[in-house]
Amino acid sequence: MTAYQQLVAHFATIDKFSHLAAICGWDQAAMMPSGGAQARSEAMAELAVHIHSLSCDPRIGDWLQAAQSQELSTIEQASVREMARSFQQATILPQRLVEAKAIAGAKCEHAWRTQRKNNDWQGFLINFQEVVALSREEAAVRASQGHATAYDAMLDLYEPGVTSQQLDGVFGDVKTWLPDFINTAVERQSKLAVADSHYPTSAQTQLGQALMAQFGFDFARGRLDVSVHPFCGGVSQDTRITTRYREDDFLQAMMGVIHETGHACYEQGLPSALAALPVGKARSMGIHESQSLFYEMQIARDSSFSEVLFAAVKQHLADYLPADFSVTKLQQQIQQVERGFIRVDADEVTYPAHVILRYEIERDLINGAIEAEHLPALWQEKMQSYLGLSTAGNYRDGCMQDIHWTDGSFGYFPSYTLGAMYAAQFRAAMEREFDVSKALQAGDLAPLRNWLDKNVWQQASLLETNELVRVATGEQLNPNYFKQHLAKRYLGQ
Amino acid sequence: MTAYQQLVAHFATIDKFSHLAAICGWDQAAMMPSGGAQARSEAMAELAVHIHSLSCDPRIGDWLQAAQSQELSTIEQASVREMARSFQQATILPQRLVEAKAIAGAKCEHAWRTQRKNNDWQGFLINFQEVVALSREEAAVRASQGHATAYDAMLDLYEPGVTSQQLDGVFGDVKTWLPDFINTAVERQSKLAVADSHYPTSAQTQLGQALMAQFGFDFARGRLDVSVHPFCGGVSQDTRITTRYREDDFLQAMMGVIHETGHACYEQGLPSALAALPVGKARSMGIHESQSLFYEMQIARDSSFSEVLFAAVKQHLADYLPADFSVTKLQQQIQQVERGFIRVDADEVTYPAHVILRYEIERDLINGAIEAEHLPALWQEKMQSYLGLSTAGNYRDGCMQDIHWTDGSFGYFPSYTLGAMYAAQFRAAMEREFDVSKALQAGDLAPLRNWLDKNVWQQASLLETNELVRVATGEQLNPNYFKQHLAKRYLGQ
Ligand SMILES: [Zn+2]
Ligand SMILES: [Zn+2]
Repeated sequence: MTAYQQLVAHFATIDKFSHLAAICGWDQAAMMPSGGAQARSEAMAELAVHIHSLSCDPRIGDWLQAAQSQELSTIEQASVREMARSFQQATILPQRLVEAKAIAGAKCEHAWRTQRKNNDWQGFLINFQEVVALSREEAAVRASQGHATAYDAMLDLYEPGVTSQQLDGVFGDVKTWLPDFINTAVERQSKLAVADSHYPTSAQTQLGQALMAQFGFDFARGRLDVSVHPFCGGVSQDTRITTRYREDDFLQAMMGVIHETGHACYEQGLPSALAALPVGKARSMGIHESQSLFYEMQIARDSSFSEVLFAAVKQHLADYLPADFSVTKLQQQIQQVERGFIRVDADEVTYPAHVILRYEIERDLINGAIEAEHLPALWQEKMQSYLGLSTAGNYRDGCMQDIHWTDGSFGYFPSYTLGAMYAAQFRAAMEREFDVSKALQAGDLAPLRNWLDKNVWQQASLLETNELVRVATGEQLNPNYFKQHLAKRYLGQ
Repeated sequence: MTAYQQLVAHFATIDKFSHLAAICGWDQAAMMPSGGAQARSEAMAELAVHIHSLSCDPRIGDWLQAAQSQELSTIEQASVREMARSFQQATILPQRLVEAKAIAGAKCEHAWRTQRKNNDWQGFLINFQEVVALSREEAAVRASQGHATAYDAMLDLYEPGVTSQQLDGVFGDVKTWLPDFINTAVERQSKLAVADSHYPTSAQTQLGQALMAQFGFDFARGRLDVSVHPFCGGVSQDTRITTRYREDDFLQAMMGVIHETGHACYEQGLPSALAALPVGKARSMGIHESQSLFYEMQIARDSSFSEVLFAAVKQHLADYLPADFSVTKLQQQIQQVERGFIRVDADEVTYPAHVILRYEIERDLINGAIEAEHLPALWQEKMQSYLGLSTAGNYRDGCMQDIHWTDGSFGYFPSYTLGAMYAAQFRAAMEREFDVSKALQAGDLAPLRNWLDKNVWQQASLLETNELVRVATGEQLNPNYFKQHLAKRYLGQ
C-alpha cells in the first residue's frame, strides 16, 4: 500500500468509531432513559479516548510525510491537507493541557447550570477564570502554527482559514448600520396579535415530516425525533434531526425542523465516495450554519414562499388554527423583529448584534486585552450600544446566558453570523442563474437544492472555506449581500 | 495494582465497548433507516474486531495466572472463573477458523433468506455443508478443553456446565410422555372462536407499557420500541425491549411484551456492583429464557392471573374488544394447544417437541453420527413421531425454518426448553415458601419478583448453571416440575 492508501485505511477506521460515537450521542439525547446516563457517559468517554488515540497515531505523521513525495490527484491533495489538519489539531496540545481543560470545562459548565439560575456571577467567575487561563494556553500553543493572533488559532478550529482581521472588517461594517436598521425595522412593522390555540404534537410531527420531505430530506437515510435541545446528529448515511414541541405554538418546532433539515440535507448531500475521509466532511461550522439558515431564512421565511408554507400548515393543522389565521398573519409572525436579551431567541435582524458583541469580547479575552472580570461591564456597554438594552446586574440574561464559554469553546460564535452571510451571498449568486423567487412561489425547491448540491454539498472539504465561497459566488465573503437581504425583507427596499 | 485489579480494569474497558455495541445493535433493529445499513454494519464489524482484540489480550492470561496466587474472596474467585471462561472462549479458536466460519455463516444465512422462500433444500445444502464442516472443526477444538463430546463443547457456549448426558436424560424423559400428553390436551380443549376486531397500535402500546410497569420493569432504565423481530437488548443500566404489533390481534404483542419484560427484569435486576464484569452478567441462555418464560408462562398465562390480565386488557382496549369477550375467552385463547410445523408459533405444550427434535439432530450432526443431507428424512421421521405431522418435501416449514443453524449456532436450541423447565422448577420452589396462586390472583407480583431477585437476578454468574438451580430450588434440574405444571394447566390434574 502507498502512504496515501495507508492514510485512507487508517482514517476510515477512525470514521467507523466516529460513526458509533455519533449514533450513541444521538441516542443519549433523543432516546436514553435517565438511568442509563452514568454508564453511557463512561462508555462514550472510553470511545473518545480510543478515537483520540487513533487520531494521534504517530504513523499518521510518517504517512503524511511519505505522501508528499507521491503523485496525487487534486482531490487526494485536498484529502491529505485535511488529514494533516486533523492530525495537527489532535496532536498539537500536550496531553496535560487537554485533560486540564476538559476537567475545568466540565466543572465550570456543570456549576454554571445552577449558577445561571441563581444569577451568581461571582461564583461563576472563579471557575471561569480557570477555563480562560487554560484556553489562553491552548490558543498560544495553537497560534504557534502560523496564526496572526492567539484568537485566530481558536477561530480556525471552527472556521478554517477565516481570520480575525477578516472578521474585524466584516463585523465592523455591520456595526455601522445595524443599530439604526433594527430601530427602523421595529418601527415599520405592524403590531402582532396571535390568538391562543392548541396544536397536538402528533399533528405538528406530521407537518414537520411533510416539510422535511418537501425540502428534500431523504427518510431512507435519516429520522426526525424529539430532544430537549434540537440538533442534527448521526452520520451522513443516516442523518438524524431532533426538535421539541410546544403545544401552544407550532412555529417554533416547524421553523426548528426546517433549520435542522438544512443541516441534514448538507450531511446527506456530501459526496458518498469520500464519506469516510476528513476531506469528505462538512467544511466548517459557518458553512454548516449557512445551509440551515438558507433553508430557514432564505426559503422558509421568505415572502415568496409564504403561500406554499401556508398551504402545508393548513393541510396538517387546519383543525387547530385560529379562525383569523391567514397567509399575512403567518408571514408577519415569521418575519417579526424584536430586541431581546437572549441570543437563541433572536430573529435574523438582531442576531448579528448578539454575535458581534460576543466576538469582540472573546477575541479580546483570548488575546489578553481584557480579563474575565471585565465581562459584565463590557456586556452591559455593548448591549446598550448595539441593542439599546441594559443588562446591569442581570448576568443570567447577560454574559452568563450561553453554554459555549463555560467549557472554553472560544471562536465558535462568529460561525452563526458567518452562516447567515454566506446564505445571503449564496442566494444572490443563485439569483444570477435563475429566478429564485419564482421557484419559491411555485414551491419548487429543486433548482435551489441543485445549486447547493453542486456548490456546497459536493464540495465537502475539498476547498478551504474562503475558496469555497469564492468559487461558488465569484467573490469572497461580502457582507453587503446580507445587508441587502435584510433591507429587502424588513425595510421593503 | 494487583493482578485481579488489572483484570477488573481491563474487563471494565471491554464492557464499555460492549455497551456501545449493544446500543448500536438495538438502534440497528429498532431505529435505523434502511439507508444506514451498510455504513452501520461496517462500523459494528470494526467495533467487534476491537472488542475481540481486547478480549484476546495476552496480558489477560498473565493476570489470570498471577491472580491464582492472590487471596481472593468467594465473589472474586467466581469473577476470575468467568473471566477465564471468557478468555478461553475468545482465544481458543485459530483466527483462520473464526474468519472462515463467519464468512461461511454469513453466506449461508444470506442465501437462506431466499432459499427458504423457494423451498430450495438442494441449494441450501451446498452452503450448509460448509457451515457444518467448520462448526465440527470448531467443536473439536473447543472439546479439547475437557468436554465429553464435540457437541458438549458447543452446548457449553450457551448453557455452561450442562452436558449432553444430562440432556439425554431430561429430554429422554419428556419424550416418553409428551406425544400422548399433546393428544390428550388437544382433545380436552373446547373449540376456539375469536371474533374479528381491530386494535390500534397506540392502544396496544399503552397496554404493553402498563403491563411492563405492573411486572416491575423500570422505565427510568429502559424502553419499549418496535422491531421486526422482538428482542431484549441494550445494557443492564438501560434495557430495551421491542415488540411488533398486529392490529387484528392484540395477544401476540401483549404476550411478546410480557415475555421480553421477563428478560429485561433479569437484566435490570443484575447486581449493579458487578455490572462491568463477566461474573455480573446473566448466567446463560437457558436461565435467561427461564425468566422470560416465568413471566409469560408461570404468571401471564396462569389461570390464577386471568382476572388481573383481563382487567388490564379491558382498561386499555375496552373500545375495541368483541362484545362476547370475557375472562374465560381470554384464558381459552392464551392456553390454546395446537400442533404445528413452526417452532416460533408453538405453545408451551408442543414447544419441547420442536426443541428435542432439533437437539437430537444437531447433537448427532456435530458428533459426526449423521450428515447434513440426512436432515430432511430425520426431520420428517421425528415430526411424525413427536407431533404426528408430515413435512415430506416441505423443507420451508421443516428443517429450513430456523435461522440458528444457518450461521452455525449449534447448541443453542436446548436453552428454550431448559428455560421452560427451570421456570416450572422455580415456581414449585416458590410454592413451598408462599401461596403463589393467591399472589397472582391479587395481582401482587412483589413476592414472586423478590424470589427471582434473590435466587436468580442477584446471583448473576456467581454460580455455575446447575449450581444456581440447586441452590435456588434444593435440587438439580428435574423435568418433573415441568410435567406437573403442564398436567395441572392442560389436563386439570
Ligand atoms: Zn444550526
Ligand atoms: Zn426469550
